[in-house]
Amino acid sequence: MIGEDVFGVDPWSVPEHELSLEGLAHTESVFALSNGHFGLRGNLDEGEPSGHPGTYLNGLHEVRPLPYAETAYGNPESGETMINVTNGKILRLLVDDEPFDLRYGTVEIHERTLDLRNGVLRREVRWVSPAGQGVILRSTRLVSFVHRSIAAIHYEVEAYERPARIVVQSELVANEPVPEVKDDDPRAAAALRRPLKGEAHAHRELRAGLVHITKASKLRVAAGMDHVIDGPAGTVTGSESEPDLARVTVATDLKAGETLRIVKFIAYGWSSRRSLPALRDQVDAALAAAQHTGWDGLCESQREYLDDFWARADVELDGDPALQQAMRFGLFSVLQSAARAEGRAIPAKGLTGNGYDGHSFWDMETYTLPVLTYVAPEAARDALLWRHSTLDRAKARSRELSLEGAAFPWRTISGHECSGYWPAGTAAFHINADIADATRRYLAATGDEEFEQGAALDLLVETARLWRSLGHHDAQGGFRIDGVTGPDEYSSLADNNVYTNLMAARNLHEAAALAARHPRAAERHGVDEEEIAAWRDAADAIVLPYDHELRVTPQSEGFTRYRRWNFEDTPQDKYPLLLHYPYYLLYSSQVVKQADLVFALYMCGHCFSDEQRARDFEYYERITTRDSSLSACVQAIVAAQVGHVELAYDYLTETAFIDLRDLAFNTKDGVHLAALAGCWQVAVAGFGGMRDHGPTLQFAPRLPEHLRRLTFRLLYRGRRLRVTVGHEEAMYELIEGEPLEILHHGEAVVLDTDGGAQSRAIASEPARPRPSQPPGREPPLGDARR
Amino acid sequence: MIGEDVFGVDPWSVPEHELSLEGLAHTESVFALSNGHFGLRGNLDEGEPSGHPGTYLNGLHEVRPLPYAETAYGNPESGETMINVTNGKILRLLVDDEPFDLRYGTVEIHERTLDLRNGVLRREVRWVSPAGQGVILRSTRLVSFVHRSIAAIHYEVEAYERPARIVVQSELVANEPVPEVKDDDPRAAAALRRPLKGEAHAHRELRAGLVHITKASKLRVAAGMDHVIDGPAGTVTGSESEPDLARVTVATDLKAGETLRIVKFIAYGWSSRRSLPALRDQVDAALAAAQHTGWDGLCESQREYLDDFWARADVELDGDPALQQAMRFGLFSVLQSAARAEGRAIPAKGLTGNGYDGHSFWDMETYTLPVLTYVAPEAARDALLWRHSTLDRAKARSRELSLEGAAFPWRTISGHECSGYWPAGTAAFHINADIADATRRYLAATGDEEFEQGAALDLLVETARLWRSLGHHDAQGGFRIDGVTGPDEYSSLADNNVYTNLMAARNLHEAAALAARHPRAAERHGVDEEEIAAWRDAADAIVLPYDHELRVTPQSEGFTRYRRWNFEDTPQDKYPLLLHYPYYLLYSSQVVKQADLVFALYMCGHCFSDEQRARDFEYYERITTRDSSLSACVQAIVAAQVGHVELAYDYLTETAFIDLRDLAFNTKDGVHLAALAGCWQVAVAGFGGMRDHGPTLQFAPRLPEHLRRLTFRLLYRGRRLRVTVGHEEAMYELIEGEPLEILHHGEAVVLDTDGGAQSRAIASEPARPRPSQPPGREPPLGDARR
Repeated sequence: MIGEDVFGVDPWSVPEHELSLEGLAHTESVFALSNGHFGLRGNLDEGEPSGHPGTYLNGLHEVRPLPYAETAYGNPESGETMINVTNGKILRLLVDDEPFDLRYGTVEIHERTLDLRNGVLRREVRWVSPAGQGVILRSTRLVSFVHRSIAAIHYEVEAYERPARIVVQSELVANEPVPEVKDDDPRAAAALRRPLKGEAHAHRELRAGLVHITKASKLRVAAGMDHVIDGPAGTVTGSESEPDLARVTVATDLKAGETLRIVKFIAYGWSSRRSLPALRDQVDAALAAAQHTGWDGLCESQREYLDDFWARADVELDGDPALQQAMRFGLFSVLQSAARAEGRAIPAKGLTGNGYDGHSFWDMETYTLPVLTYVAPEAARDALLWRHSTLDRAKARSRELSLEGAAFPWRTISGHECSGYWPAGTAAFHINADIADATRRYLAATGDEEFEQGAALDLLVETARLWRSLGHHDAQGGFRIDGVTGPDEYSSLADNNVYTNLMAARNLHEAAALAARHPRAAERHGVDEEEIAAWRDAADAIVLPYDHELRVTPQSEGFTRYRRWNFEDTPQDKYPLLLHYPYYLLYSSQVVKQADLVFALYMCGHCFSDEQRARDFEYYERITTRDSSLSACVQAIVAAQVGHVELAYDYLTETAFIDLRDLAFNTKDGVHLAALAGCWQVAVAGFGGMRDHGPTLQFAPRLPEHLRRLTFRLLYRGRRLRVTVGHEEAMYELIEGEPLEILHHGEAVVLDTDGGAQSRAIASEPARPRPSQPPGREPPLGDARR
Repeated sequence: MIGEDVFGVDPWSVPEHELSLEGLAHTESVFALSNGHFGLRGNLDEGEPSGHPGTYLNGLHEVRPLPYAETAYGNPESGETMINVTNGKILRLLVDDEPFDLRYGTVEIHERTLDLRNGVLRREVRWVSPAGQGVILRSTRLVSFVHRSIAAIHYEVEAYERPARIVVQSELVANEPVPEVKDDDPRAAAALRRPLKGEAHAHRELRAGLVHITKASKLRVAAGMDHVIDGPAGTVTGSESEPDLARVTVATDLKAGETLRIVKFIAYGWSSRRSLPALRDQVDAALAAAQHTGWDGLCESQREYLDDFWARADVELDGDPALQQAMRFGLFSVLQSAARAEGRAIPAKGLTGNGYDGHSFWDMETYTLPVLTYVAPEAARDALLWRHSTLDRAKARSRELSLEGAAFPWRTISGHECSGYWPAGTAAFHINADIADATRRYLAATGDEEFEQGAALDLLVETARLWRSLGHHDAQGGFRIDGVTGPDEYSSLADNNVYTNLMAARNLHEAAALAARHPRAAERHGVDEEEIAAWRDAADAIVLPYDHELRVTPQSEGFTRYRRWNFEDTPQDKYPLLLHYPYYLLYSSQVVKQADLVFALYMCGHCFSDEQRARDFEYYERITTRDSSLSACVQAIVAAQVGHVELAYDYLTETAFIDLRDLAFNTKDGVHLAALAGCWQVAVAGFGGMRDHGPTLQFAPRLPEHLRRLTFRLLYRGRRLRVTVGHEEAMYELIEGEPLEILHHGEAVVLDTDGGAQSRAIASEPARPRPSQPPGREPPLGDARR
């Protein structure tokens, strides 16, 4: 689908002008609505046809056995899977006894638009039934950012040119059939086939509800709906319910041009602890509040919420309207994944699809939180508080592994390790440093003191303890961390992974600094001066391998002596390589799935000289396949930093269009949240050159040819900043808050609200020859778009 | 059970004087009879009670799915499991309507003896039924080495002191209940619960037979039985059959002291190709031949076969009767596993139990074949021919892994890779060099020219090609083999494992030499001078890491810089460590499950200086847990070589008593064939100091204090040798064949049949301080026995 534009270009929306039945699963992911608490895939109102029906409650999961051909101590025995819960989106339509079904009859108009400013999904259809009856259908769907349990659908049917008999069945459907899980383990498939057991069902007038419990994990979920109906005289309604179905039926006769209007309010609640009556009451109360607010009220509050968000978060890219649209889609997706998650994780696909079983990975702390920290810090705090809520499980896991401190899971919903292949799971211990670094960043950007002495100290101390026990001093006094897996999943169980070691050292230093700053709080954790000294010593002595012959930093010890991958003889249809080559070959070769050493160049850039960064970047460019969607944005950021700003632009397009153009061919499973969050990071850390790991916020802006201007906004320690980058100069504005010193290409600039915008020149840079990628692995959209 | 003697001590048999019902599974493994073609566990004649019923046909297996929590390219999707086939051992006995069952009544005498010279299992029981009726039961069971499809049981019942009504049901039972497979995958359990589908059953007079087919693997198995009955007048017989049961019933009345004698002949056949009638005929013909030979004839030929074997193979250990018994039990077990395998594998447990699913590993080439090569070379040849018969599968596997040549499976029955955890399976590529080395050894010891230009060339060329593609030259010109797993399973995916690299280099050199010796045969494989040169070059440039600071050879690159295992704080009940610690911790620590670098010191001792060997041995002694039964014998051999001959003796007792004393607590799953084969290797390569990798056979004998004399025998290039080692001198005798030059502690000695025995002095050696093992991991039987 590369280059095929499913969606029209618009700065503030994602419009689709024609329906593709084959592409439904893709567009359902793009048109998914979510507030972080729950999410609805962009399934058609009438339920069918569908690519993959999906209604997800963040955190609600079923457990299933994890099988092993040969198991080992420490392998998790059960996994967690996000399940498709009661579907409240469904409004089935009967036109003169004919089901409204786009697979039959004639679709004259089918337009859908995701409105990024109003936070709604709009749809307009003109359809003529096989019997010749036309209807116009207009629906607007909303998942409220303000009422976190509430979705609503404004649904209109108009008789087109001829009178029509209309029946609408508004439903809640539990245990709806979903495409079979592609897993040859029948136990897992069975566990997920009909995961919900009915506990209660009720209906009264236009309201109905269902309560279910998951069979193994024993989580209770309640769904309710209520309606406002506006139809011509003679419109009749009825309601009914049974364990897996609640239905409100509306029947009417419409004259030509006459309209039936239905507002459907949907509410969800779930809990592992609350009783059935309590949960049912909670949902009914949410419905009552939504009814009270009304459709217009919901829409207004949604718009206000988003106006506020865009004022803090918008990134403007003058000169590339399609990229502008993709950037905003990315930011909107990040917001949707996290806004009201409130104590739950941010899954790798948000709540837009069931890819990766709905698990959260390091993506959350490393890709999504760096954005949220500067545009929605309360959401970043909530996400870190979710991690913190799993600390006991992480400590138990660490003990199970004979380690100290906390070992957070590589993939999880509830905090339990769910990885079934430990070399690319548990061994990727870097997630613990990633969590610590997200904590550090949040503290640095917000100065949140309550958080600092509470959750932050917990997280930093326990991760530091993990690193101290994972590593050890060798005979030369170096602190080694052996046998771990870094970000690159085409390597595994390697010694002294540079990314891991640098991030672990930072983790140890930050924990030491925080504990020293709060000695009494630290004492409550049993941290004394000796332990702090041991952390500092380990961090200072961290081993960083270097290849003195090639003058290149190996991503792990020995890496640069590995077999070179034969890219010349690797056909393009063998990518991604992991589907066609054994791990053995990948692990023992110089072939990189995703930025690893290059990630270290970004996150810990100050640990490398400028020339070293440039040399390392070029070395790894030649061997990086970007078989992971996590890679392009990191390569973009480092490319911009080391003087390849045009290459950075090409990589930005790759990360930005990943879902709108389905570049990885799997957006059907949900959007690539990390890649989308990466758009903001490329704009701000790449072209804006922002670095936040020192005491002063730094910028080193540099704009690619293709863009005329870049503007981004930041919240920072109670201030609001706006940065505008042109080709010749950058402009820094403090919109609100106390004066602030920042660095522009190393030069100190003091901003205050009285002083107005400060402009600084951007020195031109000597052009460097563009580094090469493996044959066929050049950024796919680069040439076509420039 | 350490130190608890279940068995009496006897130089030529293994007697048990009392039955332990709890220990049944253990004694069933020790008393198993097999000829390599099929095997019968030492289950009681009457079938129950039993620890684990077992009747195995070498190669007959069922396939079952291998599940993965997260799968990857190249993981095998199905595995193979040796199954319990039709049980022909059963002779149920009814005494005055009371079933003869040792769980009831009174057992006055119960003696069993495995006779190592006659190759039979004898049993004598005197039992009084709960109703007070006594019987004496005498049975002798034999699995013929001469008639490879035939087992026979000589069964006698005598009425003790009072007349008795006796019924004997001689049976064939298919799909008998076995203890549930300990595997949480229900598909696997289901596949193995009733693996046989009845195809035919028949009975006529005293003969009956059953034909079955395995459900998924579609292998056909036929079992038949025939009888000779000798009872008092009035003895009546009958026969019947149904799909899973054939039965011949004998009823008689015995006066006090009167005896009923039954000889039961049992025959097996199986095939993936032969038709049902053909297979049934084959079994009936085997029965006819056995009948014709008769019980006495079978016993005589068995004795002759074994007399011949012991004349070639016996190892005499003067001064330690228990060790003498264990040594002969070990040799007998090796013979039983292989004698008539003829084109089938030698499983890790022989045919004595279903441990490891009946799979063959590198154990075969590395532990068992070095013995067979010198005492039963035709069996070694057969085993190598089995490997060779799987060459096409190994080549296909290699292609699947994007490698050249052949990649033999880590564990298999039919030649397909069955390993479900690739870091300790497929990545243990050293098995290919082990196969090549067993081939080399067989050629060197036999001069088998037909084999040399045929199967041997195939095996050496294709394994050399594998190594050439697995390794690569680095910038310094070294030939590296990265990311593989050596023998030690507490390490994995390491670079330049010394054992692997040395063995790979030998594989490459030997292939080059063989191809150069047979240019026309090599040409048929497409081997030209360039390829041979590439092999030699790679072998000469092999990378061997060395720690210059510690002056120790790391088992793999970087190993000596890994975390030291905290042995002091490791409780003894945490061994074996793999059941209590995660692979992550084991892999990244200096802790060794089994000889790895020490194995290299044995197999490639000439690549190390004497001091280096001694230093390396001591270094690894301190960190080797011997959590694998494969380790003690290798440590014994190297200990003897580097001057720790008393330690070698202690390790010999550990490997020799592994099953007779159930040292690993799992002999119930079958005997530890590799460890038992290791006994011979310790005697010959350890105390005898034999080395066979050069052009001249070398000996460097040295006897431990505790032994008075050691005598061993060898077949070598058509000659028969006898070597007798005392404390002061060694005596070499050429019993048969052309004159031969050997080396005694480096001194050339020419042997010929006319010259008589040649004695040479053994210089005394400076005592070295005994190296230490991890706390609690000292050889368990050492002190107690010295």
